[in-house]
Amino acid sequence: MFSTADLIPLRPFLGSVREAETAKLILFGCPFDGTCSYRPGARFGPAAVREVSDALETYCPVLKADLEEVPFFDAGDLNMPPGDVRGSLDMAYRMAAAVYSNRQIPAAIGGEHLISLPLVRAALESEPDLVIVHFDAHFDLRNQYLGVELSHATVLRRIVDLFKPSRILHVGQRSGVREEFTETELQANFYPATTEPDWISKWIGDRPVYVTVDLDVLDPSIFPGTGTPEPGGVSFTTLQNWIAGLATCRWVGWDVVELSPTYDPTGVSSIVAAKIVRTMVLASLSGCR
Amino acid sequence: MFSTADLIPLRPFLGSVREAETAKLILFGCPFDGTCSYRPGARFGPAAVREVSDALETYCPVLKADLEEVPFFDAGDLNMPPGDVRGSLDMAYRMAAAVYSNRQIPAAIGGEHLISLPLVRAALESEPDLVIVHFDAHFDLRNQYLGVELSHATVLRRIVDLFKPSRILHVGQRSGVREEFTETELQANFYPATTEPDWISKWIGDRPVYVTVDLDVLDPSIFPGTGTPEPGGVSFTTLQNWIAGLATCRWVGWDVVELSPTYDPTGVSSIVAAKIVRTMVLASLSGCR
Amino acid sequence: MFSTADLIPLRPFLGSVREAETAKLILFGCPFDGTCSYRPGARFGPAAVREVSDALETYCPVLKADLEEVPFFDAGDLNMPPGDVRGSLDMAYRMAAAVYSNRQIPAAIGGEHLISLPLVRAALESEPDLVIVHFDAHFDLRNQYLGVELSHATVLRRIVDLFKPSRILHVGQRSGVREEFTETELQANFYPATTEPDWISKWIGDRPVYVTVDLDVLDPSIFPGTGTPEPGGVSFTTLQNWIAGLATCRWVGWDVVELSPTYDPTGVSSIVAAKIVRTMVLASLSGCR
Amino acid sequence: MFSTADLIPLRPFLGSVREAETAKLILFGCPFDGTCSYRPGARFGPAAVREVSDALETYCPVLKADLEEVPFFDAGDLNMPPGDVRGSLDMAYRMAAAVYSNRQIPAAIGGEHLISLPLVRAALESEPDLVIVHFDAHFDLRNQYLGVELSHATVLRRIVDLFKPSRILHVGQRSGVREEFTETELQANFYPATTEPDWISKWIGDRPVYVTVDLDVLDPSIFPGTGTPEPGGVSFTTLQNWIAGLATCRWVGWDVVELSPTYDPTGVSSIVAAKIVRTMVLASLSGCR
Amino acid sequence: MFSTADLIPLRPFLGSVREAETAKLILFGCPFDGTCSYRPGARFGPAAVREVSDALETYCPVLKADLEEVPFFDAGDLNMPPGDVRGSLDMAYRMAAAVYSNRQIPAAIGGEHLISLPLVRAALESEPDLVIVHFDAHFDLRNQYLGVELSHATVLRRIVDLFKPSRILHVGQRSGVREEFTETELQANFYPATTEPDWISKWIGDRPVYVTVDLDVLDPSIFPGTGTPEPGGVSFTTLQNWIAGLATCRWVGWDVVELSPTYDPTGVSSIVAAKIVRTMVLASLSGCR
Amino acid sequence: MFSTADLIPLRPFLGSVREAETAKLILFGCPFDGTCSYRPGARFGPAAVREVSDALETYCPVLKADLEEVPFFDAGDLNMPPGDVRGSLDMAYRMAAAVYSNRQIPAAIGGEHLISLPLVRAALESEPDLVIVHFDAHFDLRNQYLGVELSHATVLRRIVDLFKPSRILHVGQRSGVREEFTETELQANFYPATTEPDWISKWIGDRPVYVTVDLDVLDPSIFPGTGTPEPGGVSFTTLQNWIAGLATCRWVGWDVVELSPTYDPTGVSSIVAAKIVRTMVLASLSGCR
Repeated sequence: MFSTADLIPLRPFLGSVREAETAKLILFGCPFDGTCSYRPGARFGPAAVREVSDALETYCPVLKADLEEVPFFDAGDLNMPPGDVRGSLDMAYRMAAAVYSNRQIPAAIGGEHLISLPLVRAALESEPDLVIVHFDAHFDLRNQYLGVELSHATVLRRIVDLFKPSRILHVGQRSGVREEFTETELQANFYPATTEPDWISKWIGDRPVYVTVDLDVLDPSIFPGTGTPEPGGVSFTTLQNWIAGLATCRWVGWDVVELSPTYDPTGVSSIVAAKIVRTMVLASLSGCR
Repeated sequence: MFSTADLIPLRPFLGSVREAETAKLILFGCPFDGTCSYRPGARFGPAAVREVSDALETYCPVLKADLEEVPFFDAGDLNMPPGDVRGSLDMAYRMAAAVYSNRQIPAAIGGEHLISLPLVRAALESEPDLVIVHFDAHFDLRNQYLGVELSHATVLRRIVDLFKPSRILHVGQRSGVREEFTETELQANFYPATTEPDWISKWIGDRPVYVTVDLDVLDPSIFPGTGTPEPGGVSFTTLQNWIAGLATCRWVGWDVVELSPTYDPTGVSSIVAAKIVRTMVLASLSGCR
Repeated sequence: MFSTADLIPLRPFLGSVREAETAKLILFGCPFDGTCSYRPGARFGPAAVREVSDALETYCPVLKADLEEVPFFDAGDLNMPPGDVRGSLDMAYRMAAAVYSNRQIPAAIGGEHLISLPLVRAALESEPDLVIVHFDAHFDLRNQYLGVELSHATVLRRIVDLFKPSRILHVGQRSGVREEFTETELQANFYPATTEPDWISKWIGDRPVYVTVDLDVLDPSIFPGTGTPEPGGVSFTTLQNWIAGLATCRWVGWDVVELSPTYDPTGVSSIVAAKIVRTMVLASLSGCR
Repeated sequence: MFSTADLIPLRPFLGSVREAETAKLILFGCPFDGTCSYRPGARFGPAAVREVSDALETYCPVLKADLEEVPFFDAGDLNMPPGDVRGSLDMAYRMAAAVYSNRQIPAAIGGEHLISLPLVRAALESEPDLVIVHFDAHFDLRNQYLGVELSHATVLRRIVDLFKPSRILHVGQRSGVREEFTETELQANFYPATTEPDWISKWIGDRPVYVTVDLDVLDPSIFPGTGTPEPGGVSFTTLQNWIAGLATCRWVGWDVVELSPTYDPTGVSSIVAAKIVRTMVLASLSGCR
Repeated sequence: MFSTADLIPLRPFLGSVREAETAKLILFGCPFDGTCSYRPGARFGPAAVREVSDALETYCPVLKADLEEVPFFDAGDLNMPPGDVRGSLDMAYRMAAAVYSNRQIPAAIGGEHLISLPLVRAALESEPDLVIVHFDAHFDLRNQYLGVELSHATVLRRIVDLFKPSRILHVGQRSGVREEFTETELQANFYPATTEPDWISKWIGDRPVYVTVDLDVLDPSIFPGTGTPEPGGVSFTTLQNWIAGLATCRWVGWDVVELSPTYDPTGVSSIVAAKIVRTMVLASLSGCR
Repeated sequence: MFSTADLIPLRPFLGSVREAETAKLILFGCPFDGTCSYRPGARFGPAAVREVSDALETYCPVLKADLEEVPFFDAGDLNMPPGDVRGSLDMAYRMAAAVYSNRQIPAAIGGEHLISLPLVRAALESEPDLVIVHFDAHFDLRNQYLGVELSHATVLRRIVDLFKPSRILHVGQRSGVREEFTETELQANFYPATTEPDWISKWIGDRPVYVTVDLDVLDPSIFPGTGTPEPGGVSFTTLQNWIAGLATCRWVGWDVVELSPTYDPTGVSSIVAAKIVRTMVLASLSGCR
């Protein structure tokens, strides 16, 4: 079992089982927003997702599946120290590695996108043949942001430092510097918002997959509660279908990041995030039902 | 004429005539939210709809009709007592029955969805051959919610207690427990969000119809101001066209429910609700022009 | 030990011990707002208080005491059914009675003020010689509100039905009908906002005391997040000193009610409520240190 | 009777009588904010005051009086045209003059402070020996604001154009250009926030008085919902006592201005304004009880 | 060079050059909302657009162009006096005329729509063969609004007073009085929301064009921050493509109006407006790259 | 003159002179919130203060002084990189040192409190005999926060590392761990909220003084817009008088920190901050008039 020394207990996500041992997937929160370039507040994302999850149903009519049929455990939030970027990332790495050592799937709720870096690193150590699907409004492929190398605006570039761009599929990007759109040495697989669900699962094939969902891939009309909202995004239904279309794939790990409840006065963004987390839990555990 | 003892005077809805006697339709508010399972506040819906109605035009380019051409009267709000569910529902029943006894059409602004129960009961007594069209994100077909039988989450089930499921058409549902989606003894006619306007009026045919609009059928991007927002809903244009498509039907009564201005910091949800009420008034009185 | 069947687990209040058995005081939430006459939302009070408690310190410089020195346990929230007033009150009664049977002090976070009725009833059964101190902007001494007898506007009247008005001390009231201010058969002890802390503890003497704090006794400048804000109230410091002044009394039970986070866009009302709860825990357990 | 051609019907203020003829005071709204120098929105003030008045009690424990004992009539709002400053002011003048011709007291809810100019003009024509008490954070004694002579920042200067500065008492001012504080030809009677209630009524003596309350005299902690909030103001209790202290004076007319509900997310500013209006109605009609 | 006497310095829009002389386009703000019929606040639009522009990228993937490649200068805001409609409009006229005299393109950020009147007048004097493309939810073709001729609800009518309706193309209108939809002497070219980008540029041909964008043409789901939100509008992508489709036209001037940040609690409306301004700058200067 | 390479131009604070050379005081913003323990958002403080400063008067009736009489220059904001704590602090240090080398007074607008550390370091190098006056709700004297040594919760401890506790005067503290209240080796001079203005200037005497104002010393009723609001604080008038009482002292530098406009929906906190900055400018330059 993973260590709980750094974990804060919270109201568990809707449908969580009571004991970690029997679970196939371990959900945990990463309340970190230390490198946000525009609007901070993603640290409050994990708590908000749990709080509103109670207003959802456990049944998903798209996947025709129910949270009560799949064994996942909500471990709470990592107690990440404000102002310590490397310490926070290391905490996420150790958590994911501990989950892998238990032969369980780690699944993280952000927090900002930079937390994907240690999680992908742990996933790679567990599954060297990994591919990544990256839903996002941005590529996050800059080398630096105001001179800083570890930033939510550079996280995919740091991941590209770990392995080949051709093993990453970018979906939904609509903003960036010119190079991010054009340099194939940085990004080799870019499929904009009209991508069909089937296309993505075909690209994955039978390779193990890590899925990272930056929720700002959604249009700000339905998801204003995020740090860098980018008009022109996809609808909730599109994203839900993209994820549901991956139910047949072999999942290694996943994260859902960049909910900032601070900018969500109606509470709708938190509900959207919770419903996406529900879809991710069901899709990644569809082999367990 | 109906009794006004329980009515609170309010700024009348845009285009209301000055005298109740000459009206063909009586609009009234039901400021009740006593059984909301998640976020209350629908009690403030009726006042908000009137307040913003002044910002609308009386003319509707979709129906090519004008509120000044149809005689409806805004009677104000029922003075429903907080904490008394049965007393509040009974007040709505007596109001609707009084309107029917004057050979007028009752039209209610909610408040939460449970108010449809007494209104449908009064409508059934007036028109035993009634059918119901139910626009909603949810089926509301549970038998109980935390042991409570009279709840906004059970209102259609209580209506099903009154007559056959086959006389109810559900449109737009996208959330619920598994049984609500699959048991045809509970719901026999379910048409999801892609339903064409024509289809609905054909299903009705020449039967008298009661239309209940739970505004959470709309996507929360355009209608966040509601108690249980459900991502993945229809656009304003879709709902407006669905309702406009019923202009040729014979209307017996209607309600528009679940606006909660408390969760509408931009005021857009109230404007949406007022524009839907305008469409409902014009569609239900299209024979009068 | 009390039954946990009806309890929802939540992030525990700052400084809660891990095990109920060793605690001297059991804290629980009553997320109920079924009879609010104006603005609902108090159901979200208990969760908000816990969530922000993490931003407080455990040490209180006024009482010179620390939460880590007093053994209290946060049991979570009662799972109260919306729309069922009597069922909800009964659930609170059974919880308090179970706590008394364990020789512990029950302490409730509201929710609306009506929850004090079952809690006082349980306290009376445990301590028949009880007196009550009632901090509030309102007397809540009406016999009915719109014909309803069980209401947050009548809760003290229902308590007066249980025993003599002379055993209740009203502090801070500044709004009501004329009779509430003038009829001594209803209220015999009314001390407005200038009351000194010492005065209250002298009035109590060595009698066992139940303390009910309707947070709207505070001025809405510091506490806007409540259902019926009443301008002209006391400062946070005044209320804190009033409560701290009771540290030498013998406490039987207490509640802190009427936080409605829905009307608290800055989060300050929740922080105020949490700091008052901290003061109540420390004052009521001051004998334990 | 005054003409109602320009009046918009609204939910009447709490306790309003049903018929204008029998009333001693006519309340009306002036939804005008055409010259606001910083934040507009005062046009929504009159409607907000009525809407929340329902949450008040009719009884005032400070004046020991009840709205149901004094005959006042709420006539609704003047239909002032946006963009037409002079037309709007003229409409207010005609309304007040009509009320005076009926031997009733006009009482206006703003809207911005410039509406006091036509109201004072009408009052002067009715009572040439008038004095004015001016509660405000600002003197409003500039001659121009960005070259504009008719502005909420110049309204008292325009009133000074009508008669002698010595007949105006300024109370609560704490912001302005140097001249407003020092030139006695502009302002002869300035009494800052520590003024005692008695002092003001003594200054008035038996002269007929017009009272204008710019609500920004209050501290923004209790009254943020205004166009130019000015930290350092008086408490609600202070202002309430100042007004209550005028109950023995002979009132000719009054206004309460500069509530902007747009900047009042908690609703407290509107409640404060309504409670001040209640106090003004009771104080100005205290001779009627 | 234009006079800067009336200009307020502000954080310049993202990518503005440092010196006005070398620029081909002069951007300036018109913080005016003196005739808004419903919700004011557009005066704060220009500052908000600049403030959030920093969160954008300079590169636009739709136009494949970058702000750093086109020379435009942000001159700040005109210091328009509240309460003086004609003075404010005249200030805008003089600014635009000065820019034309420098052979530069004036581009204004509103502010309310009435500011288009003086800007179009200056454009006509510079280019008598002008045509106008008018993106808007409303026609703004009324002759008066509550008796007022200069109003944001009449601005196109006042423009029609200047030249022939056939030289104006209306796009996106969905609200108005019946005459605005039907009288071809008022509006001769009305193309609703399904208009293709190509269609518009074909209609323009090689005629010089002034483009006025009332941002309420967008659906309020993505753009709630405006004075008269109108459900049923177009998506951000649609509007962006419409504007991008005009990159090949000959631009004479343009404005983007009716952002009211007061009603934009999430900040998304301001971001949308800034991204539309970016698109307008790039499209109108596409000949310069 | 200081280098402007790292400076972002912004609307200058009300009354700023146009040229840096002639100024006696250089104002600059530090938009940094990288170590906030609870609610981030202070990065937006400097821009908000400038934006609302325009709504103030240049004249201060408390100090009987006018901003137009004192030469200060607003240099804009430092371009601090998110995620790089040490880099951001170093940027502030270099700015302050450059200002001292020009024989001007540096004055910073935060941003979070940690920015005081490099500013005090630069001040000490310029004036080794410095004393510090520290207005704050918290002592900020912890050695670590979750293991982090550079934090807004430890900033005074890091300053204590630089020189003796006896040279620091703490005013207004009301929250902390027990040691911060009791260990005189950490804090030797603690004067709670009842401190008289005169007392502070007497304590300073003729020693050069650096003044750091953490705005959360104010009560959250008047200043909710901050990261860690602490009920029970002082009024605006109290803080203003404290600062005004220092007008006779010899100022070496100052900062005003911890405004977070994100939690200030009414805008009042920003206005309060701007008025405090006005008072600080006038008090620190009172020798120049």
